[in-house]
Amino acid sequence: MARFLSVVPVDEAVAAAIGLARPVGTETVPLDEAWNRVLGADARADTDLPGFRRSTVDGYAVRAAETVGASDAIPSFFRLKGRVAMGAGATFALGLGECAYVPTGGEVPGGADAVAMVEHAELLGDEVLIAKPVADGENLVLPDEDFGAGEIVVPAGRRLSPQEVGALAAVGRVDVEVRRRPVIGVVSTGNEVVPVEAVPGRSEVRDVNSYLCRAFCRERGCDTRFYGIVRDEPGALRAVLETAANECDAVLVSGGSSKDERDLGAATIAELGEVLVHGIALAPGKPTIVGRVNAIPAIGLPGHPASAFVVLIVIAGPMLAALAGDRTDRSRRARARLIENVPSARGREDYVRVTVRDGEARPLFAKSGLLNSLVRADGLLRVPAGREGYETGDEVEVLLW
Amino acid sequence: MARFLSVVPVDEAVAAAIGLARPVGTETVPLDEAWNRVLGADARADTDLPGFRRSTVDGYAVRAAETVGASDAIPSFFRLKGRVAMGAGATFALGLGECAYVPTGGEVPGGADAVAMVEHAELLGDEVLIAKPVADGENLVLPDEDFGAGEIVVPAGRRLSPQEVGALAAVGRVDVEVRRRPVIGVVSTGNEVVPVEAVPGRSEVRDVNSYLCRAFCRERGCDTRFYGIVRDEPGALRAVLETAANECDAVLVSGGSSKDERDLGAATIAELGEVLVHGIALAPGKPTIVGRVNAIPAIGLPGHPASAFVVLIVIAGPMLAALAGDRTDRSRRARARLIENVPSARGREDYVRVTVRDGEARPLFAKSGLLNSLVRADGLLRVPAGREGYETGDEVEVLLW
Repeated sequence: MARFLSVVPVDEAVAAAIGLARPVGTETVPLDEAWNRVLGADARADTDLPGFRRSTVDGYAVRAAETVGASDAIPSFFRLKGRVAMGAGATFALGLGECAYVPTGGEVPGGADAVAMVEHAELLGDEVLIAKPVADGENLVLPDEDFGAGEIVVPAGRRLSPQEVGALAAVGRVDVEVRRRPVIGVVSTGNEVVPVEAVPGRSEVRDVNSYLCRAFCRERGCDTRFYGIVRDEPGALRAVLETAANECDAVLVSGGSSKDERDLGAATIAELGEVLVHGIALAPGKPTIVGRVNAIPAIGLPGHPASAFVVLIVIAGPMLAALAGDRTDRSRRARARLIENVPSARGREDYVRVTVRDGEARPLFAKSGLLNSLVRADGLLRVPAGREGYETGDEVEVLLW
Repeated sequence: MARFLSVVPVDEAVAAAIGLARPVGTETVPLDEAWNRVLGADARADTDLPGFRRSTVDGYAVRAAETVGASDAIPSFFRLKGRVAMGAGATFALGLGECAYVPTGGEVPGGADAVAMVEHAELLGDEVLIAKPVADGENLVLPDEDFGAGEIVVPAGRRLSPQEVGALAAVGRVDVEVRRRPVIGVVSTGNEVVPVEAVPGRSEVRDVNSYLCRAFCRERGCDTRFYGIVRDEPGALRAVLETAANECDAVLVSGGSSKDERDLGAATIAELGEVLVHGIALAPGKPTIVGRVNAIPAIGLPGHPASAFVVLIVIAGPMLAALAGDRTDRSRRARARLIENVPSARGREDYVRVTVRDGEARPLFAKSGLLNSLVRADGLLRVPAGREGYETGDEVEVLLW
């Protein structure tokens, strides 16, 4: 009883899904709304940054050579030529034997090549005693030391972190070109699936997967459009997928959990486009479809939420990143010592839910379809296709949620 | 020249900040908008889940005892009593010698106690041959095996992940009680600070910190309100902080980078409320203020963006989590081998920016105030107050961005 035409390795399925994804276009947003958006084009420094020689301490600008040998017992003497005010710039230069007070962030005047900290200086009238030598360049930042004019500050494809938003502010990007948020259609299928607000009868289940898919897409920076729960009738699914293909950048079809329902999903996708993958050497998640409906990628997910979630992470995640033009790796991984054997069949990738506590990973061997293990687990342990599992005591890497 | 009345350890400063934060109230949102919100009250299962005995495979429901000794050569024979349809429930029970077809997710009829997979069965007319024994309970899920009625599905204080949203769907939570998003006021101060759209003159800097603070707050699930760049005049800052105290749940004041400016921030906060901490044994980030303005927490951040960012992560982060009622630990950590010495002064916590590649951590010894190191680094290496740094080859834990 062959359920699948052919089962392909995970890498091949991921490559197929990525290959179908065309990056979305760009739009311009104000910088204060750019956090977590994907930068559309390299952002370069408009000028040298900071653009002037800036002191990194509160202190006295001097010529370093004139502090050689300075000590508490025999300090170097300087005449205080003036004080640099914050935001005002240095309006004078220093001659031999002269110094100037400069606050942190202030401009170091011409003639000086270092700043002595106030902690090592004493002001006596208009004379300053420096009790410790400074080196050439000490306690100051050069005009292009942060970024040189034209240098890339943040490269295209980064999902902007707070500090990257800060860097864009520093180079004067009031408006930022970012990728549009991809719009992902979400469809639930299955005669046994009832809306969340309904009380399920015997053999019925609430529509968990559409919520799971929508929340996952939002976590990955996408917007979603929900097309409801579609009964297992060919015409109904076909109509919904045709609409989604016109309105979305990709579509996720959460399959019914029985074979007949899954086959209907594959047949409908094939009719409207193409099925590239039907069955992946992946557990849980074998009955997964990768294809397209018109020009947009379509992924058919297993009906069991725990299986669907593995497919979201392993297959849909890279596809959404490709759509969004997102080249940021923000996966969270932890190394841990396994405290129980994890058997696995060679030839398929297994994803085992695990808890991680104090550096120890404990597998949760839950029956597929149970949600509680998804909520209790801290992440997934991947067993590569070439391995027959892991043994107690092995050091493993866990992909944290 | 004492800049600080007293410098307190990091733990003490964090405790002070958390102690000032009163958790915000709750509101109700639709489940499809609940992702990344903080759950306001424990969510419990309304009924047993799945609520019926559910098959985890496509197969034949049988009494396990009647399959003992079954093999390809000598299969067990059953009469096919009927087929359970998806979403319809089992409308009949099985007698001795009877079986029923059950799809994955379908209800296992009364009388049966296991399900034999179709892969090990053969259908001949209305007789079914089972070629492999099954154990009592095999391939089925009990009515309360996922969650029992009344059991906590997701505890209060979780920032909801996609799988937790899925679990709430399973228990019928159409509307979810979540914490309101805290509103954080952001103020920039400093005569040298110019708006991002301006071209800074000598000694001037663009307003990086307000963007950094706002993006950080959004990353932590907060809304923000920006009160502009305030000149170093006591009345101006006072007026802004009074307004913020009425409109926000907390306020972040990005200080000027000189001592005079920082002292002005502390004096104004003291006037409107209380300064609990002025100076932390933290590098970078020593000139930090923790206090309150009327009833809301106020944190005064150093003017240098790289220092401000460390204070956001170490001090403001825990305060925002306390405000939001958020008890989720989503910090990303990586263990790595240090490939250069990191000296540090005993008695203060040092946070050193590092890159992490292939398990190796390389410190970036950047001058404070440089943004490029914040963008280039992958995270922070914390050197505890009790250590004099780390040595090449030490295995260290890096707090990833």
